[in-house]
Amino acid sequence: MDERGLIRAISTILPGGATADDCAVLPHGGELLLLSTDMLHETTDFPVGMTDAEIGWMAAAVTISDIAGMGARPLALLLAAGLDRPERLAGITEGAARCCRTYDASLVGGDTDAHTELTLVSTGLGAAEQVVRRRGARVGDLVCVTGYLGGAQAALSGYDDCWQRLIAPQPRVAEGIALNAAGATAMMDISDGLAMSLHDLLGVNECGFAVESDRLPRPAGVPEAEGRAFAISGGGDFELLFTIPPEKFPVAGVEATAIGRVVAERGVWADGAPLPAEGYMHRWE
Amino acid sequence: MDERGLIRAISTILPGGATADDCAVLPHGGELLLLSTDMLHETTDFPVGMTDAEIGWMAAAVTISDIAGMGARPLALLLAAGLDRPERLAGITEGAARCCRTYDASLVGGDTDAHTELTLVSTGLGAAEQVVRRRGARVGDLVCVTGYLGGAQAALSGYDDCWQRLIAPQPRVAEGIALNAAGATAMMDISDGLAMSLHDLLGVNECGFAVESDRLPRPAGVPEAEGRAFAISGGGDFELLFTIPPEKFPVAGVEATAIGRVVAERGVWADGAPLPAEGYMHRWE
Repeated sequence: MDERGLIRAISTILPGGATADDCAVLPHGGELLLLSTDMLHETTDFPVGMTDAEIGWMAAAVTISDIAGMGARPLALLLAAGLDRPERLAGITEGAARCCRTYDASLVGGDTDAHTELTLVSTGLGAAEQVVRRRGARVGDLVCVTGYLGGAQAALSGYDDCWQRLIAPQPRVAEGIALNAAGATAMMDISDGLAMSLHDLLGVNECGFAVESDRLPRPAGVPEAEGRAFAISGGGDFELLFTIPPEKFPVAGVEATAIGRVVAERGVWADGAPLPAEGYMHRWE
Repeated sequence: MDERGLIRAISTILPGGATADDCAVLPHGGELLLLSTDMLHETTDFPVGMTDAEIGWMAAAVTISDIAGMGARPLALLLAAGLDRPERLAGITEGAARCCRTYDASLVGGDTDAHTELTLVSTGLGAAEQVVRRRGARVGDLVCVTGYLGGAQAALSGYDDCWQRLIAPQPRVAEGIALNAAGATAMMDISDGLAMSLHDLLGVNECGFAVESDRLPRPAGVPEAEGRAFAISGGGDFELLFTIPPEKFPVAGVEATAIGRVVAERGVWADGAPLPAEGYMHRWE
């Protein structure tokens, strides 16, 4: 069973819609509060060669990216650390705190425990007047992405110029807030790769998504065909995928590319052919 | 290095006071938001023989207890699960959701991953107009505990009548809110045992704490001397330890016992002798 299968299985237990978005959204005190939690393990989530501070940054960044993916501002973060060696905590905490400060959030606490494998769980609190959900795409909207795609996968494939892209993800907080204000109709972060994310949108919308592969913003220094493959299925980019009416795009201050359209026909399409849901997934074999 | 040593080590990195209480407290929108996260592992935190639903309940309860320990109401909980077997998630989620419902909170989401050892991280959001912190005890206040102490340790020591006490902790949410309203001056939950918790209070207050061991509410069915030892040093009880001016005690609707006094002399005292900080602690050897 893969992670998405598990999420479907437990969605019957959780309140309505709790598993449909990057964050849980709670109306509270006249605004919306957002909560998101991410569990990361050394062997599966942190590329070999990362420093403890880089690991801490990444743990914070993936959760802040979930908040950015709904167009909200991050407020605070907690970090629970299962430590194989206790002396790693200082570096991890320093990196996580630095990431939080970069995005005007605070690392406010956490928990520690001994563990055979380094395990980090970051939980973020965000706030917004309104959010952009995964559901909401309308036929005729543009399909767009911020920044460029495939850089993290390129680094994993040996393109060393992309290394920082892999280990120091930069959540698109300001972009998410701007896209929210500008009228994006659906949004999420692309941590698991574009193809997978488009299928996630498909699962909660009644339309389809057609992209053109030659429009995909690709990593520099990577041959075109390979870069295109990385951009379609590579994970770890933490850019935003969003839909928006054409008349509202581009959005001031947001570096983004229109890569396709929301279409009536159900499915995910690349250059007119079905695009399978391939990319990064947790999986139990 | 033990967990408290680690917390001291990282307290220089986190914002002022972030590690002094059971929860992080954030002023937001005219009220206080509380955040707490707890990491639990099967081999160290869940007694053998618990069902998955009981494990889920406990993971939720320890975090709700942290919120109760500051006199706040829990709003929402997230559960990150590192699963040794994916089929365990349904039972764990069901138990956690049931615990949340019992305390008027919602299980709103989570994350899952594969893990060699079951690892659960629950993170809770609470809210309050004001909170009771660990710091605030005043000389002359009563030292009190809710319910009784030592039941969880009694179960671990073979007193089977106490088994439910061990595996199904009942966070003192209503009691915490009532004690907050009634003017408790300092409060925390006693998850690591009374002696350890009194030393935690000692660490953030300028006074001392003197308790009388024959006043400790002990588990029924356990011989007196053994029950007293369990009550002093046993962990896992999730009762509230608080200080309160004598004229404000007892508090309507709160079953609690005065076990001692806040004194001027620095230290933790039982029957006039120093009480060492012994009890449940995570420890790296």
